[in-house]
Amino acid sequence: MNGQTELKPYVIGLDLGGTNSVFGVVDSRGEIKATTAIKTQAYDNVEDYVKASLEALHIIIDQVGGIDTIKAMGIGAPNGNYYKGTIEFAPNLIWGHTGIVPLADMFSQGLGVPVALTNDANAAAIGEMTYGVARGMKNFIVITLGTGVGSGIVVNGQVVYGSDGFAGELGHVIVCREDGRSCGCGRNGCLEAYCSATGVARSAREFLEKSTEPSLLRELNPEEITSLDVSIAASKGDQLALNIYEFTGRLLGEACANFAAFSSPEAFIFFGGLTKAGDLLMNPIKESYNEHVLKIYKDKAKFLISGLEGSSAAVLGASAVGWEL
Amino acid sequence: MNGQTELKPYVIGLDLGGTNSVFGVVDSRGEIKATTAIKTQAYDNVEDYVKASLEALHIIIDQVGGIDTIKAMGIGAPNGNYYKGTIEFAPNLIWGHTGIVPLADMFSQGLGVPVALTNDANAAAIGEMTYGVARGMKNFIVITLGTGVGSGIVVNGQVVYGSDGFAGELGHVIVCREDGRSCGCGRNGCLEAYCSATGVARSAREFLEKSTEPSLLRELNPEEITSLDVSIAASKGDQLALNIYEFTGRLLGEACANFAAFSSPEAFIFFGGLTKAGDLLMNPIKESYNEHVLKIYKDKAKFLISGLEGSSAAVLGASAVGWEL
Repeated sequence: MNGQTELKPYVIGLDLGGTNSVFGVVDSRGEIKATTAIKTQAYDNVEDYVKASLEALHIIIDQVGGIDTIKAMGIGAPNGNYYKGTIEFAPNLIWGHTGIVPLADMFSQGLGVPVALTNDANAAAIGEMTYGVARGMKNFIVITLGTGVGSGIVVNGQVVYGSDGFAGELGHVIVCREDGRSCGCGRNGCLEAYCSATGVARSAREFLEKSTEPSLLRELNPEEITSLDVSIAASKGDQLALNIYEFTGRLLGEACANFAAFSSPEAFIFFGGLTKAGDLLMNPIKESYNEHVLKIYKDKAKFLISGLEGSSAAVLGASAVGWEL
Repeated sequence: MNGQTELKPYVIGLDLGGTNSVFGVVDSRGEIKATTAIKTQAYDNVEDYVKASLEALHIIIDQVGGIDTIKAMGIGAPNGNYYKGTIEFAPNLIWGHTGIVPLADMFSQGLGVPVALTNDANAAAIGEMTYGVARGMKNFIVITLGTGVGSGIVVNGQVVYGSDGFAGELGHVIVCREDGRSCGCGRNGCLEAYCSATGVARSAREFLEKSTEPSLLRELNPEEITSLDVSIAASKGDQLALNIYEFTGRLLGEACANFAAFSSPEAFIFFGGLTKAGDLLMNPIKESYNEHVLKIYKDKAKFLISGLEGSSAAVLGASAVGWEL
């Protein structure tokens, strides 16, 4: 380390998703100076993926003044292991589902800067702490409500990685022990099976089947209903859609009440598509939390929606991992 | 701070229980050099309690060479708040159940040494890290199985105190959402209602009522059955008593599987009276854990019984809190 480090004003963030890989060059205030993207699954093997990434990256790196302006790179990726910088058995990646991919090392060798990698939800947590609503907080939990349910847990100002780098999988806490819904992980009753976007769509199909209540959702093919359809119906005042949000929020609130007994966080921060429902989701979460939580924790935790806006949130989160290096 | 600190070879540990307050002067290897005790509830107010404690303490402090040999004091107490050094609304303490008692400050003023206070389970966790089976571990969870169920969670080598000093109440995670047993905390279905010593006695009454299976426990007045009776019957091969341990262990294993999704600990360490059952309890815990845990955590965590022996364990744990100062 020398004084030079101070002169490097940018980090690179990579939001590595199942469909797109979005890169951004980000400054310390969280402004994205340049951005690019490639298709994650257009490559059969990781060598070709990294090669294509580096080609795309060199263009935006040149735009901001060359590699000497880059301090580090942060990657948010499914099944990312922070300790090892690897992606391990990621079911949704063609080039990553059967083994352990040392992606941080590959990018570090290609760029000549330090690279850190973690899972997407941990990246979101670091992003909130660096640029978002968790600035100044030492104890909080980010819960990502997307295709799945992920979590990034911060204790004493540090992300909880656990003994193996895989801590913080609160989407796979069992919330329903009897007749729980099957989950992608092979077990039953996980929080993710209820409170992800796909879980909400599944709730819609269940609710439609169990009642004869009229609903805008009945105009759709049940198999094709998405959480967005539920959201649109709810925003039009559709009672059955509103009940689905109530059900989803209450389950999340109950789960958070159990999480409080673990790390007593200052805030629960929700991130991802489902949070667009706003109070429709947040109000039942808060009500249910206060009903279920141990008395000593009551009315203490804040319930917040991510402060990282829109499509750039995941890139910002990933870039924040780079600042930690 | 000056060189003098190095010359102070001892800390005082206070295990503050509902019945007895046990004090020990402990060296850095965990040897108890002198010990004394007073009755916790023989005093109507905390001033008298502290006065009596100091009188008892001065005798053993003199035995080891006077107050100049004492570096600090650590207290393990019910409802202890580490951040504030207070005992807050402790239901089982005559002089502590209605308010906030600044016990660390009171002892610090009385002795002229720094004093830290935390709850009993956190003290046990620090004790395991300092003198016990968790030496060298950075991520583990201690679960105390006594009258209640407590927990001390260590992440990145630090006890998790959370935003308010009250984190780590895993005995009050809800494990049974439908028709859960009532818990002392006023809610239903807490782990503590099943897996504490009183929970095991309650299971015995339920099991006896639900079946007509012959059992040594039928010779006892059901209302007077204790976890010790169940343990004795089990050690004689009594099938119903064995089933109670199986039931208790399986619930603990399921709960630990959820805890793994939080902090992915290197070990779960069990502490307290119920652990005397040994494999009768530990085997069903391990089996149930591996059946229920998310695949990525499988076969990773160790399941250990506390390395702090016998009646001195709680004093050692409390004293270890003093070393952290």
